[in-house]
Amino acid sequence: MKLKLTFFFSLALILNVSAQQSDEAVIRQIFDEALARGQSYPVLEHLTTRIGARLSGSPGAAAAVEYTRQVMEEFGFDSVWLQPVMVPHWERGRGEHGRIVHSRKMGTEPIQIASLGGSVGTGSQGLLAHVVEVKSFDELKALGEQGVKGKFVFFNRPMDPTKIQVFSAYGGAVDQRGSGASEAAKYGAVGVIVRSMGVNLEDYPHTGSMRYAPDVPKIPAVAIATRHAELLSKLIKGDEKIQVYIETYARTLPDAPSFNVVGEIRGTTNKNEYIVVGGHLDSWDLGQGAHDDGTGCVQSIEVLRIFKALGIRPNRSIRAVMFMNEENGLRGGLKYAELAKINKEKHLAAIESDRGGFTPRGFTIGKTKESIKKSIQAWKPLLEPYGLTDFSQEGGGADIGPLQDQGVTLLGFLPDSQRYFNYHHTPEDTFDKVDKRELELGAASMAAMVYLIDKYGLK
Amino acid sequence: MKLKLTFFFSLALILNVSAQQSDEAVIRQIFDEALARGQSYPVLEHLTTRIGARLSGSPGAAAAVEYTRQVMEEFGFDSVWLQPVMVPHWERGRGEHGRIVHSRKMGTEPIQIASLGGSVGTGSQGLLAHVVEVKSFDELKALGEQGVKGKFVFFNRPMDPTKIQVFSAYGGAVDQRGSGASEAAKYGAVGVIVRSMGVNLEDYPHTGSMRYAPDVPKIPAVAIATRHAELLSKLIKGDEKIQVYIETYARTLPDAPSFNVVGEIRGTTNKNEYIVVGGHLDSWDLGQGAHDDGTGCVQSIEVLRIFKALGIRPNRSIRAVMFMNEENGLRGGLKYAELAKINKEKHLAAIESDRGGFTPRGFTIGKTKESIKKSIQAWKPLLEPYGLTDFSQEGGGADIGPLQDQGVTLLGFLPDSQRYFNYHHTPEDTFDKVDKRELELGAASMAAMVYLIDKYGLK
Repeated sequence: MKLKLTFFFSLALILNVSAQQSDEAVIRQIFDEALARGQSYPVLEHLTTRIGARLSGSPGAAAAVEYTRQVMEEFGFDSVWLQPVMVPHWERGRGEHGRIVHSRKMGTEPIQIASLGGSVGTGSQGLLAHVVEVKSFDELKALGEQGVKGKFVFFNRPMDPTKIQVFSAYGGAVDQRGSGASEAAKYGAVGVIVRSMGVNLEDYPHTGSMRYAPDVPKIPAVAIATRHAELLSKLIKGDEKIQVYIETYARTLPDAPSFNVVGEIRGTTNKNEYIVVGGHLDSWDLGQGAHDDGTGCVQSIEVLRIFKALGIRPNRSIRAVMFMNEENGLRGGLKYAELAKINKEKHLAAIESDRGGFTPRGFTIGKTKESIKKSIQAWKPLLEPYGLTDFSQEGGGADIGPLQDQGVTLLGFLPDSQRYFNYHHTPEDTFDKVDKRELELGAASMAAMVYLIDKYGLK
Repeated sequence: MKLKLTFFFSLALILNVSAQQSDEAVIRQIFDEALARGQSYPVLEHLTTRIGARLSGSPGAAAAVEYTRQVMEEFGFDSVWLQPVMVPHWERGRGEHGRIVHSRKMGTEPIQIASLGGSVGTGSQGLLAHVVEVKSFDELKALGEQGVKGKFVFFNRPMDPTKIQVFSAYGGAVDQRGSGASEAAKYGAVGVIVRSMGVNLEDYPHTGSMRYAPDVPKIPAVAIATRHAELLSKLIKGDEKIQVYIETYARTLPDAPSFNVVGEIRGTTNKNEYIVVGGHLDSWDLGQGAHDDGTGCVQSIEVLRIFKALGIRPNRSIRAVMFMNEENGLRGGLKYAELAKINKEKHLAAIESDRGGFTPRGFTIGKTKESIKKSIQAWKPLLEPYGLTDFSQEGGGADIGPLQDQGVTLLGFLPDSQRYFNYHHTPEDTFDKVDKRELELGAASMAAMVYLIDKYGLK
């Protein structure tokens, strides 16, 4: 009896160790494939430099849908299809510009502005008004109608550079962009100028979405380059009579037809269970949508390509999803979750990559059972050799968020994002800002996580 | 008695917690200072864009010595001085170029080459020869004189892209650059062409140091851009008669006078004990010496500036050292250690930053007592909130290496170096490749480590 027990334990130990070694070997192969024979970089090059900007409803977005569909077909995934979805269709229009108009001396001085997504335009007659600077909605409220009416409200609270997590600095400032226009319009402002969501002093503006509250006049809203925000602030302090002139041509058109693009490798033992990896295919119109979020899309495609290249047959079905319209509506994410529900597709997990294509640091984990969180964190020793050490932060991703209701475990790919807000929503978000190795390491990290979730499940 | 003991324990607990909080608070202030009021970035901008390349013995190196001396004076450090040191003086000369000469069809094809540091030049008569490709010294040996004599040896073993630590990929290839010329000359080669130490396909060459063995003819040695290495390799396979022509003007001049630049904040309780932070001031001549190693220099200066700005009076004396001649001689590092010995200066620790100005990941620790390693690693909880999680790798830095003999604990600042070898020793190592936040986070990380070492000592 004693012997038997010893034998049993030894066997268990051997099996366990060998399973462990096998995971290590597979993950090593995943990284080798991504780094030595990876395809994410050339696919990103095409998506960003040949197609470029791809705001929802634009010809660029349509091209990106067709391009990624073709890429996934060429990679030989088991199925590739489109999910139709109607998306908001906002256009910047051509020729927007702005300038500071001095009162005492003649002359004006150009400033770099960009209409915020969703904003109305001024049209060719432009908008000229005095400027009142505030740092918060409380300051705005204190000024009241008397201080604000007929003026531009200039929201100039910077992102806090001392926050180590830049997304937290972003979170601490982005209310000005999202709600500034309607908050200011309540007090009779004629327009808003919002300091760009950039942590450094820059000469280019950051666009991004804004929303009008119901029952409040829709006034034009523009971002201003951080360096010009500093200039404007300084000039106002010296001369209250300074005015700003903006001319913008933004407009909202009727909703347009578009698509999510889905590629799938079918599972073996549990093919009716799904694991999703995804990014969003749409991007703001100013740059090429490289880090936001071309990288997330090509990494997701690369996960499936790696599985195929290595001959890994997953238990569950694995999908790469290019979500449409994350930037100004989230219609793609909502549509995907809606269809999953209608089709009774059981999703085990979804991983989103939408924090830039930088060196991997770990994964965020969305609200889920403590046991699931623990089991994901228990894989850390397998992932640490690849620089993946941070599994402590909470979060998933915007596009996969609507799946939360269906009990899906959400994860976010967590790269080092220190330089993300140099590029985010700007003309600088271009292919040359993406490092090939960093991009590939991210794709491999996501593939390794999918491999582990698929193999062990989440309980 | 029982009560007293409880009281004693409670007090100990309170004191301990409060000491802990105080470290946390100080480290938080260090990061705030670096991120909100940091000076490392503008100093780097001047060093790289106004002064630029600064190879030992060059006017640029002299300008950098004087500039960093002035900067440290202006920051009001307690003492700033120069340590004279004679340095090797090698010059690339103007007009080096190379091309592939086809045998069957007329015409030639330009390739991007760069003389390796220390190499002789061909002079204006140039050098035209057939090419034999090898991947290793073993292959070279197998070819022998018969296969090599009168030819270029083309060392074409790439850096292994699947190594997660790029420095280990570098270590696996750099023997070709350092010793290739003399190994090939033993068998009668007339010159060597070495695949650049870059992990990606690039259009620009990486220079770097090489050494001639004694009693072997000194033959010209050039690096070739990785993309052109691939091209050359392909063309040779199709046509063995292909030749390469290079024309290079490199030469070694007599040793030149130069300096290490040292800034110091004097300690209070242990002012005759020293902690060094340093980088190397010299750089290769092709770029601006931004990541290699302008960033290490300005971060080291910033450490002392932060101490002063926050009013931290260290127990030990803290020095920022700009070492001269790391790239092709290490004379500055040797001189610093020699003077420390002569002057009987007890150095507690030295930290070098020479892996690029990227996002911090941790510190390497050189060979030292296990107890010292453990006590450094015990500070991890204080540093983890700033992304510093890796204290497991061994290493210090080239310039501080000569201090090892004096029992000094050596540390290396460890950033995320995934994109380092895109820039290293190339025309691409320019200011615009450095991210302000990443640079500042590194400076703060080093300051935090110096603060802890100074406060607690190393036992």
